[in-house]
Amino acid sequence: MKIAILGTGTVGQTLATRLVSLGHEVMLGTRDVAETSARNTRNNYGGPSFAEWYSDNKNVGLGTFNQSAVFGEILINATHGASSIHALRSVAASDLNGKVLIDVSNPLDFSKGMPPILIPDLCNTNSLGEEIQRSFPGVRVVKALNTMWCGLMVNPALIADSDHHVFICGNDAAAKSAVTDLLTQFGWKSFNIIDLGDITAARGTEMLLPLWLRIMNTFGNGAFNFRLVRGKA
Amino acid sequence: MKIAILGTGTVGQTLATRLVSLGHEVMLGTRDVAETSARNTRNNYGGPSFAEWYSDNKNVGLGTFNQSAVFGEILINATHGASSIHALRSVAASDLNGKVLIDVSNPLDFSKGMPPILIPDLCNTNSLGEEIQRSFPGVRVVKALNTMWCGLMVNPALIADSDHHVFICGNDAAAKSAVTDLLTQFGWKSFNIIDLGDITAARGTEMLLPLWLRIMNTFGNGAFNFRLVRGKA
Repeated sequence: MKIAILGTGTVGQTLATRLVSLGHEVMLGTRDVAETSARNTRNNYGGPSFAEWYSDNKNVGLGTFNQSAVFGEILINATHGASSIHALRSVAASDLNGKVLIDVSNPLDFSKGMPPILIPDLCNTNSLGEEIQRSFPGVRVVKALNTMWCGLMVNPALIADSDHHVFICGNDAAAKSAVTDLLTQFGWKSFNIIDLGDITAARGTEMLLPLWLRIMNTFGNGAFNFRLVRGKA
Repeated sequence: MKIAILGTGTVGQTLATRLVSLGHEVMLGTRDVAETSARNTRNNYGGPSFAEWYSDNKNVGLGTFNQSAVFGEILINATHGASSIHALRSVAASDLNGKVLIDVSNPLDFSKGMPPILIPDLCNTNSLGEEIQRSFPGVRVVKALNTMWCGLMVNPALIADSDHHVFICGNDAAAKSAVTDLLTQFGWKSFNIIDLGDITAARGTEMLLPLWLRIMNTFGNGAFNFRLVRGKA
């Protein structure tokens, strides 16, 4: 399948590498292809620069946001939450309409220091997932995977025998089904994919981030996830 | 130990019954003792009225907020989040200062319909736990147990062999140690009590509520909790 990933940071790279390994054709979308290609400083986590990563992943395409959206049958939003709407506005509506967009981003606001807060306008009574759906009503938005470190997004088997949970939500049942299929390819067990309903549930999954960040700080790394355990009450 | 519970709803009742069964002396605090005692309508969940519950729990004391605070060596805030500050203001500072206050409440705002949002002023850049600590600086606030159904708060063994997690945070290490001891009496395994640091972490645990409510809606009941699973990355 042809998959476009908007965003060239660690999350986009991690998704791209994994999707290619699964046999998909992938194009990364960015604002400025020349600037992104030339980026040769280490990323915020001390990992390889984009140029270095790309030299090892030449089978991944690289284009503008618009070029990637034209290419992709499925789109993944992996831009910073603060610039996601802007990035999508640079795509022609005709290249978005009808497509499934998996939104894995979070509306983090680093302007007040660390830890980040959520962007106030995209929190509590709204969410990034809803804002994208409202701004681009022709797109079939599915919020997914935003509640964990990207290494786990694409490879849940890294911890606990894959027995932990991922949340999805969105207004289009067929789109959620397509996303569920992709998650299963990543290694998610179907019974661990929790459908929370319509896109307003993105408020819940995005508002998990402050707790996630605190736990990451306590544990010292992001290689953890939440498993739901239940009774019969 | 003498424990005061501010709030006479289902959460307060559940805590009281369990604490008495563990050998503690318990007094519930309320705004209007006569009004509370006479309450004979079923609660919001279809359970017993306060009067009915109280007739089965006569060994629990009942007094004003102030009387309960005078009584308690440890205080538990189980009032509605929207009225917690007001309830605590009715207590003389001299009866609060130096005491451990376990805040199990959430700042839910039902004014916009269901599901509730969080009270905007107590969300993202603030929290109920922080607001209580800021308003009553002499109290040693520990946020705890607010991320689950009250049945599990006091009896984690109801599900998954007690192998799930509870978060605590607060500015006072000795207060957190006292709360940890109480949690252990409820059946929490010490390695499943996660100390997230200072009281600002209450933002994270309170902001879990929208997701918790969505999951409850999906599962059809609140008898679930989060278990953290980890790798070694």
